[in-house]
Order: sequence, then C-alpha cells, then structure tokens
Amino acid sequence: MTEANKGYFTEENSADVVISRIAETTDPRLAEVVGAITRHLHAAVKEIEPTQEEWLAAIKFLTETGHKSDDWRQECILLSDILGVSMLVDAINNRKPSGASESTVLGPFHVPDVPELPMGSNICLDGKGHPMQIKGRILNTEGQPLSNVKIDVWQTNDDGFYDVQQKGIQPDFNLRGVFRTGDDGTYMFWGAKPRFYPIPDDGPVGKLLGSLGRHPYRPAHLHYILEAEGYETLITHIFDPDDEYIHSDAVFGVKESLLAKFDLIEDPDRIAKEHPEGPFYEVEHDFVLAPAS
Amino acid sequence: MTEANKGYFTEENSADVVISRIAETTDPRLAEVVGAITRHLHAAVKEIEPTQEEWLAAIKFLTETGHKSDDWRQECILLSDILGVSMLVDAINNRKPSGASESTVLGPFHVPDVPELPMGSNICLDGKGHPMQIKGRILNTEGQPLSNVKIDVWQTNDDGFYDVQQKGIQPDFNLRGVFRTGDDGTYMFWGAKPRFYPIPDDGPVGKLLGSLGRHPYRPAHLHYILEAEGYETLITHIFDPDDEYIHSDAVFGVKESLLAKFDLIEDPDRIAKEHPEGPFYEVEHDFVLAPAS
Repeated sequence: MTEANKGYFTEENSADVVISRIAETTDPRLAEVVGAITRHLHAAVKEIEPTQEEWLAAIKFLTETGHKSDDWRQECILLSDILGVSMLVDAINNRKPSGASESTVLGPFHVPDVPELPMGSNICLDGKGHPMQIKGRILNTEGQPLSNVKIDVWQTNDDGFYDVQQKGIQPDFNLRGVFRTGDDGTYMFWGAKPRFYPIPDDGPVGKLLGSLGRHPYRPAHLHYILEAEGYETLITHIFDPDDEYIHSDAVFGVKESLLAKFDLIEDPDRIAKEHPEGPFYEVEHDFVLAPAS
Repeated sequence: MTEANKGYFTEENSADVVISRIAETTDPRLAEVVGAITRHLHAAVKEIEPTQEEWLAAIKFLTETGHKSDDWRQECILLSDILGVSMLVDAINNRKPSGASESTVLGPFHVPDVPELPMGSNICLDGKGHPMQIKGRILNTEGQPLSNVKIDVWQTNDDGFYDVQQKGIQPDFNLRGVFRTGDDGTYMFWGAKPRFYPIPDDGPVGKLLGSLGRHPYRPAHLHYILEAEGYETLITHIFDPDDEYIHSDAVFGVKESLLAKFDLIEDPDRIAKEHPEGPFYEVEHDFVLAPAS
C-alpha cells in the first residue's frame, strides 16, 4: 500500500494496489504466482482497453468454457492447448540436454496398465488402415543402446479415433502396447498408419478456433512414453511430416526433431520376407534419453 | 510463420507461433485481443514457470469457477472483481475530465424500473438501522446546477443485505429510489446508514481470497446512477470513510474522491426541525457530471 493514496485504486497503480493486498503470511509461491498473473493481466487489459461489452463477452466465454467441462471433457485444457500454453508448460518442464529427444504434450488419451507384448507384435486389432512397421533404437546421450526400457505407445485407428473414444466399436487396447528393450536397445512392432483427427470442436473453444480462421486438426502421430531407470521419463510423439496439417497442429505439439519419415515399402523382397500380405509403411525413429537429474 | 522453423513450436518463439496462426480474414479487433492475450499469457507462464501440477491446479480452479456460475451467481465476475480487473475496465471506460465526479463499478444488485419518489422521501422501508439524511447538488463542470437529473440510488439495509438478496424478508424496493432534480439541482432523501458486507465467499474465489490472507468485505457505501440529457451517465458509489474496510475493499471500488463524510447529528434544534424521532446521520455529497462526448 503506497502511503500517497492509502491503497485506493487508480488506473495507473492498479496492479500494485491489488498485489499490495496479498498478506505477508501467504504461501510464498502462491503470492509469486498471483502477483505475476495480476501484473500480466492488468498489462493485457491496459493494452486491449476492452469496452464493458467486450469484458462481459470474455466473462461469458470463460463461464461457458467451465460449464462445458465435466468428467469426460476438459474444455479449459483445450483452451490452454489451442493458445499454446500447454505446450509452453511442457517445454519449460522438459528442457533436455543437447542430443536428447524432445518431449511434447501427453494428451488426454493415455491409458495406464496396458498389457506388455513381445517385440514384433501387431497392436492393430481391428485390421483397419495401412499396415505399418515401427522400429528404432533407444539410446543414451553417449549413443549407447539402453536395455530394459519400457516403451508405452498408443495411436488412433484409421478412422482417426483412439480406442477409448470408441468403446464397444474398437477392440479393447486397440493400437496400444507396452514393449521392453533387450540388450541391443532396439524395438519393433506393427501398427496402422495413424490419421489426423480433430480436437473436440463443438464447444466455446471450437467456436473461438473458427472465429480465428483456424482448423481443429492434429497431424497424424504416434504417442510414446519411454521409461528407464536412471533416465528422465520421455513423453513425446513422432509425426508424419507429409500430413497436410503438419505445419498447423491445433495444439502446437509438433517440433522439428519429432518428424519421422513414414515410407511406403513396395520392394517385393522385403514384402515377401516381412509382410507377405502386401505393401506396408515403415517408420524408423531412434530416441535418446537424458540422464535423470 | 517464420521461414526458419516452418511454424514449429519452441519455448523461445511460442507466442509468435500461436499468433501467426490467426487467419488474415479474422475480425481485426478479435485478432488484436487474442494476440495481446496470447503474448501476455505466454509472458506470465515464462515468468512463473509452473510445474505440470501447478498448471493442472490452475485448470481446476478455472473449471470450478465456471461451474460455480449460474443464473444467480457469477463467480467469473467475482474473480475479475477481486483481481482488480473489473475496476480497471471501469476506469478505462470512464476517464472523466478534470473536476467531474469519478465512476466505480455497477455491481450486481442494481434493479431497473424502481418507482420515482418525491424529494425528501424515506427509502428505508424496514425501519432498521440508523436513520440517515442524504443530500447534495448535481452540477456541471462549470459549477452550474443541473435540473431534470434522474438519480437512481440503492444500498444495503442494516443487516448488510440488498432487498433482492432477501426477497420475502425485506419489503420490495427497500432502500431503493429514483429522484429527479428541480431547477436548483439539489437532492435530498432519507435512508439508513449502510453497512459493510461480504462478497459471496463460499466458492473457489472466496477460497483464493482466504489463501491470500484477504477478507471478502466491501466497505459501507451507497450506489448512484445519475442520468441527464447532454451529460455522460455516471455510475458510482459514495463511501463511509470511517468504515473499517475503507482501505481494503475486496473489489477495489474505493477512490479517494468518492469518500463522503457520514456525520452524526445530535444538535437538538436540527433534530426538532428535521427528525423529531432523534439523532440521525447526515451525508452531504455533490456530484459533477461530465458533458456527453
């Protein structure tokens, strides 16, 4: 509270007056967070100079965003996603040493306790889409292969849906699997070429996207969680660089290092040896885990 | 989209990437507002560096704030209020020329179409509290009295509640009135000395106030809306400067120019002439209206 104006509000001192009310006994981290939010929020309002009607429109938008959220739908997270905030928080919390693979957002479709499968298994249980072989190595930043790495993967089916979005339509655990590396640090399994898909866009966040001339699509990707003792857990995707939405992911999840070439294999020798049913896609991607800090 | 990274997200360019997605066909004001919000929001996140858990706590807080809002309760507005945002928007939209009375927030308890009463009426219909005479003049910035000014006033009763908060308990239109000035520009009516009262604090916003060591109270005040042809409508309060919360209004509504002395009149001559029932409070306050722009 400044002595000059006894804590009364003015347009000039607005943020200082609000922050001065935070009691000294407040949890220091909460005081820091609320102080920073207050300063940046007041700076935004001073720059925007909203009319009373615009302010009320913002209040209504936030209210509707809260109302749209329930046990199955989190519209506030979608808002964070489409404004790039979720990715920024992910980036801040996952700064990697040079050479280590980068992270991206977890997303809402991970399922715990998926059964562990032997290397080479096919996780595509509905038989839809283009068969795809996924393989590569898990290394440390010295380039050494890592054994006993738990690889948790999940992806959409050829209709662009995860199994949990189509319970009763897709088989349980369709396009999900857990694998574990051996001494050579390699992995290989079969899936289906993933498809782009929209984030839920029938709520206030989807309406905002539309008003901004933005589409709701995420480019095709596979999700990975890699866990190994002594290393930082890596939550990431690999993306199809040829997807039409690769430069415009609705949630900003794409990083250049996460692009993985999806090649169509038509070589008769390889088809005969690896997939007699016919041509298949192949994606090969190595991951490098950072040492635990 | 910068050519260098093809629009892919990095911690450094995060806000630019998000803003670059706004289509050129977007309504220019919406593009400006979303651009400013994105920049300030990313700046706040970069300063705060929230953990994933803190980010999720913020998501939950916003969700609960939306859920608490319904036709009768607007928790998002309360959040705006306690962060000083409502007052800042009010200040930006009501910059007054030198000498004109200042505005403050409307609040949620205004009622339209209140009956017009003759000057000198008593708006205190429940007989509670300390009788109070409220009077003054309505002037223009040249100091001339203004006639035909519509004065719309409302206040809490001695229990700290507005009539609309106690329907069936307080008489309808208790402590509300509309008056109209004559040629001398003066006004006078009787009410009851107002009381401090809490904003609704049983929701997430009240919980946040508690965590910040802040109380939920607004110091005692009377609300005014003054309307006159050729002048800017003035929405304001006058405050009791002796109220214990005068330096800590939970919604930052107090401005120094809105303090009005509430005097206890014990002079037997004035009591005999003006209020034979006994001592009374007197508050005298002039308002100066700015010319319509």
